[in-house]
This record gives sequence, C-alpha cells and structure tokens, in this order.
Amino acid sequence: MQRGILGTKAVIQIGFVVHDVEKAAKAFAEFFGVEAPSWSLSDPYEKTGCEYKGKPCFARSKNAFFQIGDQLDLELIEPGPEPSVWRDWLDERGEGVHHIAFFIHGMGERVLALEGAGIPLLQKAEFTGGRYAYMDATAGLKVILELLEIEGRG
Amino acid sequence: MQRGILGTKAVIQIGFVVHDVEKAAKAFAEFFGVEAPSWSLSDPYEKTGCEYKGKPCFARSKNAFFQIGDQLDLELIEPGPEPSVWRDWLDERGEGVHHIAFFIHGMGERVLALEGAGIPLLQKAEFTGGRYAYMDATAGLKVILELLEIEGRG
Repeated sequence: MQRGILGTKAVIQIGFVVHDVEKAAKAFAEFFGVEAPSWSLSDPYEKTGCEYKGKPCFARSKNAFFQIGDQLDLELIEPGPEPSVWRDWLDERGEGVHHIAFFIHGMGERVLALEGAGIPLLQKAEFTGGRYAYMDATAGLKVILELLEIEGRG
Repeated sequence: MQRGILGTKAVIQIGFVVHDVEKAAKAFAEFFGVEAPSWSLSDPYEKTGCEYKGKPCFARSKNAFFQIGDQLDLELIEPGPEPSVWRDWLDERGEGVHHIAFFIHGMGERVLALEGAGIPLLQKAEFTGGRYAYMDATAGLKVILELLEIEGRG
C-alpha cells in the first residue's frame, strides 16, 4: 500500500493548546483516573534554533503528556507570550485541539514535499534527539500537522 | 490501573466537521496515498431518535472514514443545515477537529456520571448496532467527547 507524502498515515499524537497546563493536566488526570503528569519546559532558543514563520522564535512552552492509546498520546501545551504557532492559535481560536502529529523520516525532504503540495511550513525546531515541524494544512485538511523525527527511531 | 469515569482512556476516533465531505475526503486520500472512501448518509430521525440539547434533532450528516492507526480512525462529518452538535460547531468555529471518541459500555450510566462531573450531554442518538452521545467537555478538557457504545463489543 502506498503511504502518501509523509510515508505514514498513523497519527501518534493529538496536541492541545491551553492557558494553564497544570490545571488542564489535573482535569485530564481526574477524568482518566490516572496521576497527573508533571510538565516540562521546552528548551531555550539557543538549543532549539526555533523558527516561526521564517523568524527566530523565542517562545518556550510548558508541556505535559497522557498516553491515550498503544501508539497515541495527548500533548497539552501552554505557550509563553512570544509569538509562536501555539500562542497565535491560542489567541485567535482559544483552547482546544491544535495539531495532529506523525512520526516521519527525512525531515528536510518531507517539509519540501509538503510545501510543494500547498502545505506551508509554520514552525520548526530541534530538540534533544530529534526535530519537529508544524505544517499549515488548514486549507485542505482543516488541521495543523506536526512532523516529528526522532533520531534512531526504526 | 483505574480507568476513570469512562472506563477507558483510549481515544479511538478524531472527528472533523467540514463543509464538503467529498472534497475533504479527496484531500485526505491524496495526502495519505489511499483511495478516497465513499461517504454514507446518517439515518433519519425516525430511526435515530436523535436529540440535540434536549430537543428532537432532524439533522443528518454525510460521513467518511480513514484508518489512521491500529485502533484509531478519522471521521469527516458534513452536517445538514438543521441545528446539531456538528452544524453549530461548524457555524461558530469553522472546519476542523470537532471531537475525540471513546468506546464505552453502559451508555446511560456513563452519561449520568459525566453530567455529574460537570460535562453535560449535547446530543445523543441510536444507530444500527449501537448508540452515541456527545458530551460538552470544552470547559475542563477543551474538547467535545463522543461516547460510542457498540452492541456485542467485548
């Protein structure tokens, strides 16, 4: 079976933007009957080299995760005040689902292929062990996509 | 492990509302490198007994599905013009992710338990082989939940 422009159609994450990650994590934890996860702060620009709409992005975010399937997690993101793919969505659309994510290989080529298909790059950054790119597929697919490349992943 | 008020934390569906199910299905099919699925029309009120906000709901919808994981699908919903949980969201928020769904057992009790937890019922209906309920968890969990009960399911 062909697997399209990403090489996969398996969604591995549903990402939410929220105003208060601790409060949202507590609400989900109570709902799921699990312990509330701790949140972590994303790395600073010096480590991520983050770019949003082609400019350096100094926003950091507080992130917490829940496993909601064998190969699916839910990410809660509380963005800092600086412009970012999360902050702008939160300010414009409010709290809720922000993106769906896919594990991919070959970030550079995938991003170019998506851009060629009319799905522009919004934000990209490095993190320890990998990198991500948010792509604006709201025109055709009605959602932001996150591409996640993890080094050494199968 | 305790599994909270639903008896599960496995998300089995991400639901989108769209203006044109055929167009959106074609876009996703091209993106995933698969054949576009055909859409189906939901049953009429006489079969579903659908209620939205406590009143009969005569809206029907065109629905198409993609498998996006071993136990996860993506649902595209094009609602008819009558008031419904889908139409009101589409008119107020536009196209995009509308709900996440869970398989549950014991619909009546689950709905009561969620209502008791401050998550009100929005819409419910019967379909061949089961029933659904949409619950408004936007206050705490920032998303609409769909409970799906399939008769004879494990």
